[in-house]
Amino acid sequence: MIAASVKQMGHLAKQAAFLMAKASPLQKEEALVVLADKLHEAEKEILEANERDQCSARLAHLSEALIDRLSLKGRLPSLANDVKKVILLPDPIGEEFEIQTLPNGLRVCKRRVPIGVLGVIYESRPNVTIDVAALTLKTGNCAILRGGSETLQTNLALLSLIQQALQKASLPPHAIQMIATNAREQVAQLLQLDESVDLIIPRGGAELHQYCRTQSRIPVLTGGVGICHLFVDASADLPRAIEVIFNAKTQRPSVCNALDTLLVHADIAERWIPEVIMRLKKGGVSFRVDSQTWQLLQRILPSLEGIHEAQQGDWDTEWLSLVLGIRIVENIDQSIEHIRQHSTGHSDGILTEDRQQAEQFLQDIDSAVVYVNASTRFTDGGQLGLGAEVAISTQKLHARGPMGLKELTTYKWIIQGDYHVRLS
Amino acid sequence: MIAASVKQMGHLAKQAAFLMAKASPLQKEEALVVLADKLHEAEKEILEANERDQCSARLAHLSEALIDRLSLKGRLPSLANDVKKVILLPDPIGEEFEIQTLPNGLRVCKRRVPIGVLGVIYESRPNVTIDVAALTLKTGNCAILRGGSETLQTNLALLSLIQQALQKASLPPHAIQMIATNAREQVAQLLQLDESVDLIIPRGGAELHQYCRTQSRIPVLTGGVGICHLFVDASADLPRAIEVIFNAKTQRPSVCNALDTLLVHADIAERWIPEVIMRLKKGGVSFRVDSQTWQLLQRILPSLEGIHEAQQGDWDTEWLSLVLGIRIVENIDQSIEHIRQHSTGHSDGILTEDRQQAEQFLQDIDSAVVYVNASTRFTDGGQLGLGAEVAISTQKLHARGPMGLKELTTYKWIIQGDYHVRLS
Repeated sequence: MIAASVKQMGHLAKQAAFLMAKASPLQKEEALVVLADKLHEAEKEILEANERDQCSARLAHLSEALIDRLSLKGRLPSLANDVKKVILLPDPIGEEFEIQTLPNGLRVCKRRVPIGVLGVIYESRPNVTIDVAALTLKTGNCAILRGGSETLQTNLALLSLIQQALQKASLPPHAIQMIATNAREQVAQLLQLDESVDLIIPRGGAELHQYCRTQSRIPVLTGGVGICHLFVDASADLPRAIEVIFNAKTQRPSVCNALDTLLVHADIAERWIPEVIMRLKKGGVSFRVDSQTWQLLQRILPSLEGIHEAQQGDWDTEWLSLVLGIRIVENIDQSIEHIRQHSTGHSDGILTEDRQQAEQFLQDIDSAVVYVNASTRFTDGGQLGLGAEVAISTQKLHARGPMGLKELTTYKWIIQGDYHVRLS
Repeated sequence: MIAASVKQMGHLAKQAAFLMAKASPLQKEEALVVLADKLHEAEKEILEANERDQCSARLAHLSEALIDRLSLKGRLPSLANDVKKVILLPDPIGEEFEIQTLPNGLRVCKRRVPIGVLGVIYESRPNVTIDVAALTLKTGNCAILRGGSETLQTNLALLSLIQQALQKASLPPHAIQMIATNAREQVAQLLQLDESVDLIIPRGGAELHQYCRTQSRIPVLTGGVGICHLFVDASADLPRAIEVIFNAKTQRPSVCNALDTLLVHADIAERWIPEVIMRLKKGGVSFRVDSQTWQLLQRILPSLEGIHEAQQGDWDTEWLSLVLGIRIVENIDQSIEHIRQHSTGHSDGILTEDRQQAEQFLQDIDSAVVYVNASTRFTDGGQLGLGAEVAISTQKLHARGPMGLKELTTYKWIIQGDYHVRLS
């Protein structure tokens, strides 16, 4: 079932896309139900393949932390559950909207349709394979997947289940395909396939996104990298603000919506920054602080353990760990200036009791999600009621911020007349 | 007012974009009113610059038809009117939508904002300069323009008015800038400016679009190329179908929504194709027909003047002139197959009285606009009530088909809480 070349895969995907666009909601549901079942039934084969990947990883001296991320042991029920959640979401395809009858009698509407063929390039965790397949299938799209080389055997085992499920529901098995080698040049080929692939979705670090954006002649969905800021104004409810910061930094530090830089109004810096540091140290956080904060802390604190003066580049680093940058700013304008310069346009917020300052911040900060008095951790499809999350877009076109099923669709205009001709 | 390098222009545009996003509707209106006025007041300077362009064009032995397209003589009132029309359209910026309060009390909405900086690359007619400037300004965006080399002097004269109008309204003059040389490498530089430019909009032929798509690391709005089809089913009201085809082909043959290929159901081919040809010949149309039609016509028609057998590549040609391809198909499936293979995904339609066939066609044809019983000429922002037309997109992301002001915007999520933290 694995196609000979990437070009050939594109061709097969495009044919499959024609059929997938017509698939009924029931057919798609059947495929997903079968897939969820097979994740139980085929546990043995999947875990064997997964074991082979882990052996190779050990031979290649990968870290135990990484090897643990690859492991599916005990995690298959959770994968099956993810599929079941997607089954319960409403099918977005076929919805008609902006329905109107023009003065000349033409009936016009937009009808929601799949985008077509997605190229999804991702790293490490094999659950992404099932996740992407379920979302792709639900939205009537097709996908060419390219997973991490460390999980190739696991991914191939999962792909086999996915294709069996498609066939069981009389859907084209080539709707989901996989580039099944570790060679880098096949990724480059995929990025050139603008005849058959409609959208590239990288899921990984900044480097992967950058590579796709510079190499692809297909539109690329950029996102997933978040250098997130919170500005604490002098008017903020400071004890509650500390808990928001604690949450934004420590609740899950390895993800893109975790806090990276705290900007503090100068008027409250001296009395409040030491409190923040003491509270966050309890969560295991260490700090990179600007020189003004550094001088302040040297004066005040008995120990500077876990606190360092910020180096060049620190403000442009997505920490993805228990590190927090702290900088003192003179006023809201300076905080906006800092964010405009260093934000990746993901999630940035203000903590304030001053309505006017809040409105200025909402106006001037042009990020995918802008917050007043809340943790940046809410930038998440599940938290915002989208059901599933496809990705978090930090680009401005098509979709911005958390993307759900609807954002994996497009529309066509449908115009119905009575042999209408245009007069002028 | 002309920046030294393209990179520098990008930097200035990005600064201007921050201010333009905050411009009030009144400020933007003032700038547009001043621009419309200046197009009257500065008639003499503009026409002098335009005369210089025409002299250069004559020296370069450009065709008289092309030189006529460059001319603004007598056309300035119409340009001013286009600006006035944009003034009357509603300002899309700042609108809030999908407003909701989550169960945890977070207030969430999306707010419509400008995209940012547009790079617009276009050819020939200088009215595009005013058109794009007005739409850009109304939507709070900024633009770096690169017009055709044949109209450089005219465009610079128009740019000067635009920048004066911006200044008069206390808006940053660098909101609209222009690459003021004829050198090709500056276009290449513009396409690499992903730090400051958010979207590339090519307005021109297929070659320009292709160039941008392959060279740009910025998202490109692809569109404007339409190989448009109509399939006439045996059940269609044939006399009325002929008038739709006449309209689609002859009303304005040089534009992208004009008909290129007529597909005729075999059951009606023999009696009806000769009628179509006789009617369209009165409109000056000539024909490229498939071999089956060719044999049929040889048998039936007294003269084959203006009729040729189709050559390889003809079905993939956007005629942009009074040429029509005609092919006989066995049934609707074959028409869909032909369209899937040769359409550019712009505008395709069916003429039929059979509701089921119409629905199959609407389902299976994945073009930006799909028609039942109407001329393809309606694919137009003005005709479909969008007010202004920015472009017609044939890509699937962001916007599809006619794009109005709203399609030159994006949104940001706004989340307001009461020191909310995420619990799981």
